[in-house]
Amino acid sequence: MPENADRLCVVLVGARNPLNIGAAARAMSNFGFLRLRVVKPYDVAFREARSAVGAAPLLANAEEHATVAEAVADCMLVVGTTAARHRELHHPLRRLEYGARIIRKELARGRVALLFGTEKTGLSNDDLSHCHWLMHIPTREQHISMNLGQAVAVCLYELARDAKQARASGANSRARSKAGDKSDEAGDKRATSGEVERISTVLLEALHLSGYVNPIVATSTEERVRRMARRLNLSSKDAELWLGMLRQMRWKIKSEE
Amino acid sequence: MPENADRLCVVLVGARNPLNIGAAARAMSNFGFLRLRVVKPYDVAFREARSAVGAAPLLANAEEHATVAEAVADCMLVVGTTAARHRELHHPLRRLEYGARIIRKELARGRVALLFGTEKTGLSNDDLSHCHWLMHIPTREQHISMNLGQAVAVCLYELARDAKQARASGANSRARSKAGDKSDEAGDKRATSGEVERISTVLLEALHLSGYVNPIVATSTEERVRRMARRLNLSSKDAELWLGMLRQMRWKIKSEE
Repeated sequence: MPENADRLCVVLVGARNPLNIGAAARAMSNFGFLRLRVVKPYDVAFREARSAVGAAPLLANAEEHATVAEAVADCMLVVGTTAARHRELHHPLRRLEYGARIIRKELARGRVALLFGTEKTGLSNDDLSHCHWLMHIPTREQHISMNLGQAVAVCLYELARDAKQARASGANSRARSKAGDKSDEAGDKRATSGEVERISTVLLEALHLSGYVNPIVATSTEERVRRMARRLNLSSKDAELWLGMLRQMRWKIKSEE
Repeated sequence: MPENADRLCVVLVGARNPLNIGAAARAMSNFGFLRLRVVKPYDVAFREARSAVGAAPLLANAEEHATVAEAVADCMLVVGTTAARHRELHHPLRRLEYGARIIRKELARGRVALLFGTEKTGLSNDDLSHCHWLMHIPTREQHISMNLGQAVAVCLYELARDAKQARASGANSRARSKAGDKSDEAGDKRATSGEVERISTVLLEALHLSGYVNPIVATSTEERVRRMARRLNLSSKDAELWLGMLRQMRWKIKSEE
């Protein structure tokens, strides 16, 4: 089992085909990531997916959520996967090799969500507004779109991948102690997605009340504010302070309305 | 396209299910390995595999062979894939991370065959007798057997993998949308101290007006807010947006005073 594997949540958003969910579940079971969350699956019978050879227990334990916000509420880092490279992205986009390295570090500190959209349309802008950054598998320019089950397999393989093995020519005595690896990650506990979402909500209410939000472009403003709040990369403690300040300002604005 | 990708032959031996052949073809196309050979496929109609989204040309060019010997005749190195770890293997067995490194080196010199057996039984002893060595994907002991299409995807991903990317710094790998950049994603330029100071000032004014700041501990509150604003580590662009939002809220609070 990869280190901290139980802290990774694979989140499938709006998957239409139970076979795809089953394939994703099988890959998860193969690589030892057992925590599956599905958001609004099209087929309620997804737990019986035939392609899930060996992954029945994982599917039985899968959580169903009504919204992405709910599915990632307890996660400190939310990463979306995308095939897109040239369309306008409002998030940093990282290649899997590098993104996985960051995710592994974050898993040492807390829960991470890895989001996959539907094969046809991928993650929507609304789904993406919950993500801190995006990751893409380095596929060929002429054929970038992968099958969902294969994309999940490749991402989890990379997360479980042992870089030492790639350099190995036998026993490797240069392996660093696990304690040593973790020591430089000391720091404040990061805010969860739920905490950041609360900040966005209060901030947006205050902005609406202040007339900052033009109703005509409200949706894009809201998405932009959510992305900005995520980029703050707050510690849990700072998140609490920001929430207190924003609530006070919102209250003041409201009370004088 | 990975270097020397045209020298790799993916050989599917005795695949029963055209969907599996299609899935393998799709992964090949995704990662730029376009040379498929099939040995005794069960279904002669495999070229129409529905799961081969985008891989039709690859399937149309696939070679059919009657025997493994024939399929690998022009290859300098023949590598078999297996899920087995504990059964008696008469070949060296390498983990994918390390095996792929060797294959990449060999591809610089000549043609290499990568063999995949059926999902149920894998490669037979006869098939294995054509292999120089074997490779396995590092799956979980409790669930080692992968779906064929997923196994092909993971192996080819590793062969196409760019180790440099895994070590890349954030700045290098932060590939941004090439198309017209309306993206509000933070640029690399950090906000100056002056910009952060302006944010702190406006925020503090708004907080004072809202009654957040207790006059008795005003100084320590102000210092704390300044430190928090610095910890945000904002980009110059984000600093401007935050300043705009805070000014609007301050204006609203003031106008109703």
